[in-house]
This record gives sequence, structure tokens and C-alpha cells, in this order.
Amino acid sequence: MKLTPKGMRDFPPEEMIVREAVRDRIISIYRKYGFRPMATPAMEYLDTLRAKAGEEIDKQIFVLKDEKLALRFDLTVPLARVAANSDFPRPFKRYYVGPVWRKEEPQKGRFREFYQADVDIIGTKSMRADAELLVMSNELCNEFGFKEPKIMLNNRKILDALAKKVGFEKEKKEVFRILDKMDKIGEDEVEEGLRDVLGVRAEELLEYTANNRTNEEKLESVRKISGEGVKELEEVLSFCDFPVEIDLSMVRGLGYYTGPVFEIKLSEDIGTVMAGGRYDTLLSVYGRADYATGISVGIERLIKLVMEKEKSRKKTYSRVFVACATQEFYKDTINLAAYLRKNGILAETDLNERNLRKQFDYANSLSIQYAIIVGKRELSSGRFTLRNMETGKEESLSKEQLAKKLKT
Amino acid sequence: MKLTPKGMRDFPPEEMIVREAVRDRIISIYRKYGFRPMATPAMEYLDTLRAKAGEEIDKQIFVLKDEKLALRFDLTVPLARVAANSDFPRPFKRYYVGPVWRKEEPQKGRFREFYQADVDIIGTKSMRADAELLVMSNELCNEFGFKEPKIMLNNRKILDALAKKVGFEKEKKEVFRILDKMDKIGEDEVEEGLRDVLGVRAEELLEYTANNRTNEEKLESVRKISGEGVKELEEVLSFCDFPVEIDLSMVRGLGYYTGPVFEIKLSEDIGTVMAGGRYDTLLSVYGRADYATGISVGIERLIKLVMEKEKSRKKTYSRVFVACATQEFYKDTINLAAYLRKNGILAETDLNERNLRKQFDYANSLSIQYAIIVGKRELSSGRFTLRNMETGKEESLSKEQLAKKLKT
Repeated sequence: MKLTPKGMRDFPPEEMIVREAVRDRIISIYRKYGFRPMATPAMEYLDTLRAKAGEEIDKQIFVLKDEKLALRFDLTVPLARVAANSDFPRPFKRYYVGPVWRKEEPQKGRFREFYQADVDIIGTKSMRADAELLVMSNELCNEFGFKEPKIMLNNRKILDALAKKVGFEKEKKEVFRILDKMDKIGEDEVEEGLRDVLGVRAEELLEYTANNRTNEEKLESVRKISGEGVKELEEVLSFCDFPVEIDLSMVRGLGYYTGPVFEIKLSEDIGTVMAGGRYDTLLSVYGRADYATGISVGIERLIKLVMEKEKSRKKTYSRVFVACATQEFYKDTINLAAYLRKNGILAETDLNERNLRKQFDYANSLSIQYAIIVGKRELSSGRFTLRNMETGKEESLSKEQLAKKLKT
Repeated sequence: MKLTPKGMRDFPPEEMIVREAVRDRIISIYRKYGFRPMATPAMEYLDTLRAKAGEEIDKQIFVLKDEKLALRFDLTVPLARVAANSDFPRPFKRYYVGPVWRKEEPQKGRFREFYQADVDIIGTKSMRADAELLVMSNELCNEFGFKEPKIMLNNRKILDALAKKVGFEKEKKEVFRILDKMDKIGEDEVEEGLRDVLGVRAEELLEYTANNRTNEEKLESVRKISGEGVKELEEVLSFCDFPVEIDLSMVRGLGYYTGPVFEIKLSEDIGTVMAGGRYDTLLSVYGRADYATGISVGIERLIKLVMEKEKSRKKTYSRVFVACATQEFYKDTINLAAYLRKNGILAETDLNERNLRKQFDYANSLSIQYAIIVGKRELSSGRFTLRNMETGKEESLSKEQLAKKLKT
């Protein structure tokens, strides 16, 4: 029998403990800014998914046997569907951490089921919303120990204006696709690709998109071409008290973006971990039109980084293992464990009727830091041996002292 | 365009806030007892699901178009698959809260996507494990305000022994199916059904399963028939310092149970919210045989009860709305909000460039308890107006005082 489905993963406790912690840390930042949780089903009508992505999406998604339903490939389409058909007060600021499914050929670091952590703001055209997403993203990077994230900003309005000005509206899709590959194929190949498609016009475009200039120089160079696009970015920048780099070559996919687009790297040498942008036209596909901007946090990447950083992996939440010296004292053992739990201490006991040494082996196999021994002497004296399993150090403590000591 | 898929749900913030809280409260109890998180994908190979439930399961599950994969219909089969193929230290105590999918005809309170909250203990035959599940379930009921849950206990070994003794091994499946309907059709109909199938033998069976007796009387009446089954239940009872009712008529499905089975109602008149039992043979289907017992918490039911109990629904986590008196002070507004967030206070600002009244309308629409006004006077004096949006009461406070006041 085959085991875990191809390209998917079972998450053992060691990994889940990291995953739960990363998720909780991300969500606690989202909540700090007033984002509210909203969840949608794993499945959507195939029509809903196609409405955004066309019929070619069918190849990349998991379609159900009845051909009416399919598993969602992102969290944005379901959000757009709900937001376009609801009357939540505006702005509707929502967060959602959940799995999405894509039928990709599995390869290193790519999975057919993976989690996304999205925040979106529906119902305001103000750049304050886009700026808040960057402020929050910056805080999120800091929270995970990356004090100098590389935050890049562009505006699809400027890119569209460039297409007009340089004269590649016909070749726009192709040009954007090439620009979008910068991280993958590098500057030289991008330039070559552009020259192939645009001929001499490539030089003009490359002058506009050059990155060896200050933000001011970049914005100045396109102000006459896209006044509104520049004004929007200047407004976003005015709310950011941390480095943000204007990158006029950044496209962020061929999708639905209509205004500012952003991309955040945790540091110069760690790839993109958050990305997003404004998509003011998507909701109209699903009902009522409305403004929208959002950012998606690559939570899988963050989890991977946190796991690589940690030297030892936590295997359980348990703080203490309450061992019984001999089987006759098991009832006393669970009574002591119950007392500790009542005091908020995560405590477990032996469910296998094993001898003391084997109980310790189990506690050690999960790296539980403390063990308490419950035996005849302990019960008659009311003082229990607390053993630090890492150092081997032992103390004799009353019930109350145990609770106090283990709480800290 | 169709919206939410049939029989599935979008969860708006008001509902998600309750759902997240219920989930967290359940999980914090699981962790207290040393349970560890382990997650599996939404999909399994169809063969994996059929291995437990037979090909007839196909009608009830969502099969993917390629006919190799399907969405899981419970959390036990995936657990059994992983546990039978892993070397986690034993006992492997795992929890998992996640969605499952069943292709049922949607009806009141039944959904095609719903969440389960499971705990299982793999790798011990000791009744300590089954008892721990009951102790934990009792605590869980108390946690949700139900101080006198109705906890029922039986043993499949006793039921099997009764089939032999009364002589209905041939009709066992049918008899169990009838007994299992007790909650749905009531005692009279069950008796009638049994008489239809068993004739005079029904009377003998009904004597054994009668419930108007003490636990001791019930166990005594079957001790000679199923010594081991009785001993197991006595052991479980010996670890429970709260009422547990032996119910020899309780079957808990036709599935895979092999030993103690349990069912927990929050109170006499609220239906079953947790149920489970021992399934020592299931793992062998997926690889290595091992002991197993577990309980599934009907988290959807708990969520519904909590929502019905609460008079007012929380709409956001935000503690305070930081309003700007006029647009020019927006930067100061976000600076104050940033200061509050640094102090752990959940704060949001106006992303729509609205006037003060409309900002208050928004804060009120989300029932945010406090609002702060940032204007010229406030900025020059360093004292801000804090408004309690419920009472209308206002105070003038410094930044530091705001942080202190809002923290509590």
C-alpha cells in the first residue's frame, strides 16, 4: 500500500510544534493591526477558480470526480468571492492561514499541499492600506530575527505607462514575463531576452528600469510618464520608517495586480518570503467591484528557516513526566499530575505500566526537562524528588513547591 | 456564478473568533496531558481509505478526478497509516484538529466539510490510556462550563461475549445496528427491533443490557460471560474520580472498536459531543500492528453551543481604534498606534481617509471598545483623549498612561 500521497507531507510532532509556533507568531502580528480571521472551504466550484485564472488552470489544480468542484490553489480567489458578496464593514481586513493545493510535479521544496498566510484589505483605495501591509511585513521580519529585510516596491500603473511610452503594448505580456524572471535567470539574461523581443526599444526600457539609482531618481525618471503611479508610491514611502527600495523592473506575476506591488526578502541573500500588491479589479469578477490590496506570507519558507536555525528540536510541550516508582502508586501519580495540571503545568504520566528506568527512557526520548518520582517514601513524607533530566540534578520538594518551581 | 460550495461554509470573523477560541481551549487541554500535534494531508490514496471502510465508502467521500486520491473522511485512518509506519516513541499520544469531508446530503447541522478534534494514544494496551481519555474529556466538559457531563462506558469484548452467550453471532451486525440507534429511535423501538430479529432471545439480551441498575450490578451480571471485558472496565473506573455510567447496550458504530468504547454528553439533555474507543486491530491494516485508543471531540457542536451561549458576538480582536482628528495627523496617528502595538495592545487606524465621525462609525460597527483621538491639541499637549465607546466616558491620558490603561 502506498503511504503519504505524492508531493504531500505528514507533519510529525517536532515539525508541528515549530509550525504551530510560527503560525501563532504571524497571527498575533496580524491581530495587532486589526486584521480579522475569515475562513473558506478547501473546495470551490471549478467555475469560481476558472473565473480568475482561465480554463488553463485545470491542469494545475485538483479537480473532483464530479468535475464541478476543485481544491483551491490560493487564498485570494475565495476571499474575493466572499468579499464581493458580503457587507462586512469596510475596510474589511482579513487574515487566514490555511492549506492550498497545486498539481505540480513534486521537486525539492515544492509541495502539492502547502500553507499560505494571507492578509488582505478590501474596500479602500488609500495608499495607507498598502503602506500598512509593508509596515506589518517589516515587523514580521523583525519578529523572526531579520532586522534588515529587503522590501521592494513598484507600481503596475508605472509598468503599464512604460509599455505605452516605450511602445511595447503588443509585446507587454512577453516583456513582463521576462522581467519577472529576474531572480531566476539574472540581469544579463533578462536584458538579452528583452533585446530579443524589443530590439532597440529594449535600451529605452532598460534605462527606465535600471536599479543603480536612488528611489528619488527612479521616481523622477517616470514622473512625467505616470504621475499617478509615482504619487501613489511616494505616499506609500511617506508612511514607512524603514528602508524600502523602489524597483521599477519588478512585475510580480502576470496576474491581477493593478497598482502597487511589493516583494519582501528577509535579507539580501534569502529569497522572497512575502509578496503581494493591489488588485482593484478582481472582486468585480465575483460580484460587486471593490478596492483590494493584500500580501501573502510564505509561511512554509519561514517554517523552514526557523527549523534550520534551531539546533535542538522540541519534541513535546510536556514540562514534566510524573513517574511512579512501582505500579501500586499509579493512582497517587495521576493525582499529583492532576494537581500540577490544575496549576497550569503540562504533565504526563506512564500509560504503559513500565518500570522506573523505562519511564525515564520514555521521558528522555521526548526530551522532557523534568521528572518527578512518586513512591512510598515520597507519599509518606509529602516531599517528592524533582529530577532535572538534562543535568541530573535532584531536589526534594513539596507539592506546592513543585508547582511553583515548574511554573517558571 | 454559484458561491459557497453546497453543504460547505465560509466562516465570517464573528464565527472564526469563536472557532479559534474553542480550538485553542481544546488544544491547551490536550497539551496539558502530554499530547503532541501531528498533521496529515487533506488527501489520501483512495486505497488507504478503502482499506478501512471498504469500497462502499466511495459513495460517501470526495474522490479526485484521477480516481487515485480522495479527501479524508476522518482523522483516524490517516493517523493509523502514519502510526503503523513510524517509530515515534510509544505511547505516541497525538492530537490533531482539522477538517474532514463527507459527501452527505446537506441538512440542518450537517455539513460536507467539518472539523474534528481528535486525540489518540498508540502503543499501550493498558487501561490507563482509556482512563486518561475519560479524565481529559471530563476536564474538557468542565472547561466549557458543563460540570456534570454524562460519561458512558462499555466494552466491545462484553458485547461480543453476549452475542456468543445469547446466541446471536450470526445476527450480530444487525443487532448492533439496532442497539446503536438508541439515541435516535428510543428504547421501545430498539426493543421491538431486537424482538423482530431475535425472537425470544431478545428478552435474555435485554436483561443483560438493562440500564436501571448500578454499575456494580451491571458488571456483576456479565462477569462470568466476559471476565476480561469486566476487568478492563473496572480498571478504567478505578482511575475516574467522577461519575461514569456503565451502559452495556452501547455499541458506538459498526467500525473497528475492539475494547472499551465511550460516549460523553455535556449534560443529560445535550447530545453526544465526544466519543471513541479502543481499536487494537486497525493499525495492522496499514503496516505494523499496535494497540490504539482514541476519542474524537465534536468541535463543531461545541462551537455551536458556545455561540448560542454568548449574547454578544465579538467582531474583532482590536482593543482600540486610534482616530485622527484631521488627515494631516495621520502619520502621528500611526506612530501612536505603533507605540501601543509595541506595548502589546491590538490597535488599528483609519485606512480610508474618513472624517472623525465616520471613523467612529467604523469602530462602532466592529464594537471596538476604545477610541483615541489624535489631533493638534493632543499632539501639542502630549495628552490624548481616550473614549470608551460603550459608555461614552472620556479621559485625557499621556502615551504611557494609555498603554497602561489599555493593557489591562
